Amino acid sequence: MTKTQAESNYLRRQAQLAGALLTTGLDALALNAGPSLTYLTGLQFHLSERPAVALFAPNHPPSFIVPELETGKLTALSYPFQVFPYREDPGEWAADFRAAADAAGLDGRQVGVEPQRLRVLELRLLEAAAPRANFVSAEAPLASLRIHKDETEIAAMRKAVAVAQAALLATLPVIQVGMTERQLAAELSLQLLRHGSDPELPFSPIVASGPNSANPHAFPTDRSLSPGDILILDWGASVGGYFSDLTRTFSLGEPDTELVRAGQVVAQANTAARALAAPGVTAEQVDHAARSAIERAGFGEYFIHRTGHGLGLEGHEEPYIRAGNPLPLAPGMTFTIEPGIYLPGRGGVRIEDDIVITPNGNECLSDLPRDLIL
Amino acid sequence: MTKTQAESNYLRRQAQLAGALLTTGLDALALNAGPSLTYLTGLQFHLSERPAVALFAPNHPPSFIVPELETGKLTALSYPFQVFPYREDPGEWAADFRAAADAAGLDGRQVGVEPQRLRVLELRLLEAAAPRANFVSAEAPLASLRIHKDETEIAAMRKAVAVAQAALLATLPVIQVGMTERQLAAELSLQLLRHGSDPELPFSPIVASGPNSANPHAFPTDRSLSPGDILILDWGASVGGYFSDLTRTFSLGEPDTELVRAGQVVAQANTAARALAAPGVTAEQVDHAARSAIERAGFGEYFIHRTGHGLGLEGHEEPYIRAGNPLPLAPGMTFTIEPGIYLPGRGGVRIEDDIVITPNGNECLSDLPRDLIL
Repeated sequence: MTKTQAESNYLRRQAQLAGALLTTGLDALALNAGPSLTYLTGLQFHLSERPAVALFAPNHPPSFIVPELETGKLTALSYPFQVFPYREDPGEWAADFRAAADAAGLDGRQVGVEPQRLRVLELRLLEAAAPRANFVSAEAPLASLRIHKDETEIAAMRKAVAVAQAALLATLPVIQVGMTERQLAAELSLQLLRHGSDPELPFSPIVASGPNSANPHAFPTDRSLSPGDILILDWGASVGGYFSDLTRTFSLGEPDTELVRAGQVVAQANTAARALAAPGVTAEQVDHAARSAIERAGFGEYFIHRTGHGLGLEGHEEPYIRAGNPLPLAPGMTFTIEPGIYLPGRGGVRIEDDIVITPNGNECLSDLPRDLIL
Repeated sequence: MTKTQAESNYLRRQAQLAGALLTTGLDALALNAGPSLTYLTGLQFHLSERPAVALFAPNHPPSFIVPELETGKLTALSYPFQVFPYREDPGEWAADFRAAADAAGLDGRQVGVEPQRLRVLELRLLEAAAPRANFVSAEAPLASLRIHKDETEIAAMRKAVAVAQAALLATLPVIQVGMTERQLAAELSLQLLRHGSDPELPFSPIVASGPNSANPHAFPTDRSLSPGDILILDWGASVGGYFSDLTRTFSLGEPDTELVRAGQVVAQANTAARALAAPGVTAEQVDHAARSAIERAGFGEYFIHRTGHGLGLEGHEEPYIRAGNPLPLAPGMTFTIEPGIYLPGRGGVRIEDDIVITPNGNECLSDLPRDLIL
């Protein structure tokens, strides 16, 4: 994609945003550094102790409140914008936010924010800059844009899955009894980078062995892999800012027979959810397909999380595949299918794939074997 | 350190917190997932779409509001605590926060929060759970604890610097004209992991070549290294959760003579700041030492950031080494010294070291050569 094509993509998204704000009764949007800002402008700022906020209001050029040392990034933009840079004294922030809020006409308005991204730091500065504005959630209009991936976005995710799968295949030969979870996590990380992931991985790989695998969000420890261990690997790559997120469960030698059965059940649950996901089917129906397979086998109480989550510029985003989410799936939605069973003190099994909804059903982007591998 | 020693460290810090809250007129503390929570409890949660909040109130056991799938992490705690787990329906969050706020007696109180960590998501849930509470900044009391590193913390940072230096030395031989910034960043990342960094790097290395080096916070691009390029590498390791953060500037062949002179001036500024830093000297005096060296050489307007920042469990924390910060330095404070000169469109030079204040002056943890290396 040329720079001009990319730029016209961003301008199209900003125009769509204006429509989505109108539909939801919002007058403007205040975005913190993060994926929605990248989605709308292509700009990347790290979230840091220095606030970086963009204001979007229909019929105004975007305004950027950024540290002076970040203004170089804005030279990439070829359309009109306003920049409010500040130097290193936090005492300057209030005046800078006030000038930007005035330029965007925020005061007295309904201003959308992202509750998961905007911090108390930026909220208080915005409240002081526009004391009669209401700051309300803009999650819905932003998700309505970002949830529908275009061909360019899906192509990036397809590559991110291919990189992750190649990295795993390059890692498997080095796995051996005696190495620690942390050593294995480092090896998997470096294979992800070597196979072409962006330098910033979407998340640090989860390597959870033996009883640690009963914790779905375990951090790698200094525990050494032992014969008979169950081993969960949960890893992903980033390509052009778009993520993959996969999990496979392995066994080092002969595992606990209950965990072998759990592995078969989780594989069935994964298959049932993938078989169902299609346009018009709801997120909760997909969750139910996986959950009921696990409940029928008597493991229901050990499946302690949702079946999946959306995936794209963020590791977790809409659509969430969980009970109580009536959202109908539609082409271009991308998400994980990752049922699991966790037996406290003994171990766990999870099998995670990344799928994209197509006009006729879905395409599974990942194709590594799903059996508990001995 | 044994588990018991670590646990008693955390209990000591919680007791110090109670004292610091009292001194600053706060009745309680509400912490999001993040480094302060890790500092006080040893627990690690990722910041995600699922809130994870800890409440500390003197004379109450700590309360944890966490997703059910994260409760396994709390089994590491051997002291009394209360846990308020919720399942996958966000509709449960409000009741869970209410129960926890009641248990900690938050309503009507002065409740400290971290403006840089707490999001609008958690703030709104806390406000609804304790409608008559005031949520105010607890930055000062938390910084007053975390800014003084103990021997264990300094030992971890010393190792993090050693890992980072070894990783750079292993990377230098592969740097060549024609490779891209991203390839070099991947190579440096994998050497950091291979040399013993925690799997989660403190930040993704900055590799900025040619004109890109004029942007202090550049993301690595697909630009290929070319003869005559200036090249800034800014990288760090994590050991036991504690960070290092170093920068060196290189030249591929004969550089722009103005940048050679800038390199000499930046090296002098770095030396001047390191020579001054000692107990009782203020943060702004250290900034001034570096800044005046650069101003005297006529580059003042191109040094567009502060001289340094604190370093520890976070990449940027107190003490900030900037104009207007009257904080007197004290033994155990750890921070970067990183003056830079950035000539727009041409390139930049930055030289960054990590130092710890000692009873008699400071110790520089990093000792790689600081010359512009040809």
